[in-house]
Amino acid sequence: MPIASYILPCGTASYGFVTGETLRDAGADLRARAADLRAFLATGEDLSAVAAGETLALSQVRLLSPLPNPDKIICIGLNYMSHILETGREKPAHPPIFTRYPGSIVAHGEDLLRPKSSTWFDFEGELAVIIGKGGRHIAEADAMAAIAGYACFNDGSVRDFQRHSSQFWPGKNFDRSGAMGPFMVTSAELLDPASQHMITRLNGEEMQSTPISDLAFDIPALIAYCSSICTLLPGDVIATGTPGGVGLFREPKLFMKAGDTVEVEISGVGLLRNGVVDEA
Amino acid sequence: MPIASYILPCGTASYGFVTGETLRDAGADLRARAADLRAFLATGEDLSAVAAGETLALSQVRLLSPLPNPDKIICIGLNYMSHILETGREKPAHPPIFTRYPGSIVAHGEDLLRPKSSTWFDFEGELAVIIGKGGRHIAEADAMAAIAGYACFNDGSVRDFQRHSSQFWPGKNFDRSGAMGPFMVTSAELLDPASQHMITRLNGEEMQSTPISDLAFDIPALIAYCSSICTLLPGDVIATGTPGGVGLFREPKLFMKAGDTVEVEISGVGLLRNGVVDEA
Repeated sequence: MPIASYILPCGTASYGFVTGETLRDAGADLRARAADLRAFLATGEDLSAVAAGETLALSQVRLLSPLPNPDKIICIGLNYMSHILETGREKPAHPPIFTRYPGSIVAHGEDLLRPKSSTWFDFEGELAVIIGKGGRHIAEADAMAAIAGYACFNDGSVRDFQRHSSQFWPGKNFDRSGAMGPFMVTSAELLDPASQHMITRLNGEEMQSTPISDLAFDIPALIAYCSSICTLLPGDVIATGTPGGVGLFREPKLFMKAGDTVEVEISGVGLLRNGVVDEA
Repeated sequence: MPIASYILPCGTASYGFVTGETLRDAGADLRARAADLRAFLATGEDLSAVAAGETLALSQVRLLSPLPNPDKIICIGLNYMSHILETGREKPAHPPIFTRYPGSIVAHGEDLLRPKSSTWFDFEGELAVIIGKGGRHIAEADAMAAIAGYACFNDGSVRDFQRHSSQFWPGKNFDRSGAMGPFMVTSAELLDPASQHMITRLNGEEMQSTPISDLAFDIPALIAYCSSICTLLPGDVIATGTPGGVGLFREPKLFMKAGDTVEVEISGVGLLRNGVVDEA
């Protein structure tokens, strides 16, 4: 079953299993020693232990990003040939990496915020990998065992700011400009993420469509490379990159605006849907 | 007085004022509502309230980075003309931004870790700005009021990994490859950071020397730009960039190795000293 993070009706942040429209909450006792999903992942306990609390309706809670407070959100640029070709670049020798901060990410069902400083607000559907055990110098052969689960990810990008310099960061960190969710599907349930398919839709129209197997650097290679640099911690997120079809390289360019709805759907993982509003 | 973060002899993390070789600790009561300096800054209370606990000797504690757990460590690339020129680039139209994670930062007196995957381990002396009040869309005229204090910063860089792609992040995030400290000097005590001077030394030899006033984008401009992108939170760190003289562009190249000592000294701010050891 997928795991959600959310705000309970009483205002407390929690996490729990999702079954259809029902939640099995972690409960107060478990939260006392693992306040959130990141802390639970750090315990190393089996994910089945999350089902320790009461049952409630999914409609009673306010969803958060499945990992609301990761230490790191590592984003991979230029990782599908279809996107590399549309940017006019060549396949890089190593994965280009930038980062996002949690403040740039909203939950499933929340509105993305188009900043008042730009109209070049673009979508990027991606598969996000969530680290479980973590570690340093993880070999490719051991990489899949380091994964707790997966989620859909929208690496919403403010393209003019992304092009302000050689570094992508400014275009990738506007408040509430990206999204992750709706839930974390556990690696025990999704044994072969590479055999899944991802589609991004803007107002119902298909914008991006790719098999995950088209990743230029596959998931084990990404985990090995990132962990050759720094220790991956439980709950760290690796957004694995976007395929071709982004709005920037369409003719004419097509950007998100207030009133739009954007969806990232990955078979076996879920459907992440967000509206778009203008920054006040 | 400067503020330090540290581990008490009992093993608890704390923070307090430094006077010479003496510490005035925050104390258990204050820690109960603000567990660390980041949490204290978020209260918005005057920094003088930190002096609430007992007095102890500086030698009794193990120093941490002044901000051990910031939400963001925003690093500015190419921000002194002397460094821009040595890289063969032109002054960028906007500040290039990459980030570091706390795991890449050690405290004053701790050893930097030269990774086993590279010998191109370089120093970069920088002035770090620590955000107090924070906010979004901070005007340049209001920027200095958003600052809690300053610290010396070594943006230790693994140059071959920094050149793996267009994005600097991999070269900037090796575990324990950078440093910050020794303390946070409060903005009330350092009214004019731009009038200070920074020197970086490797084994006592001067490698970098610059007036802070040579910043290409000054501190108010950096705060305004960053906060035009995302909300700056209390305790966020902006490392303002390094001047010319880094090891990569010396003839011959000069990199850090086990047994070296590197210092970043900024008048009015302090002296950050770290040894270097090889990764096991």
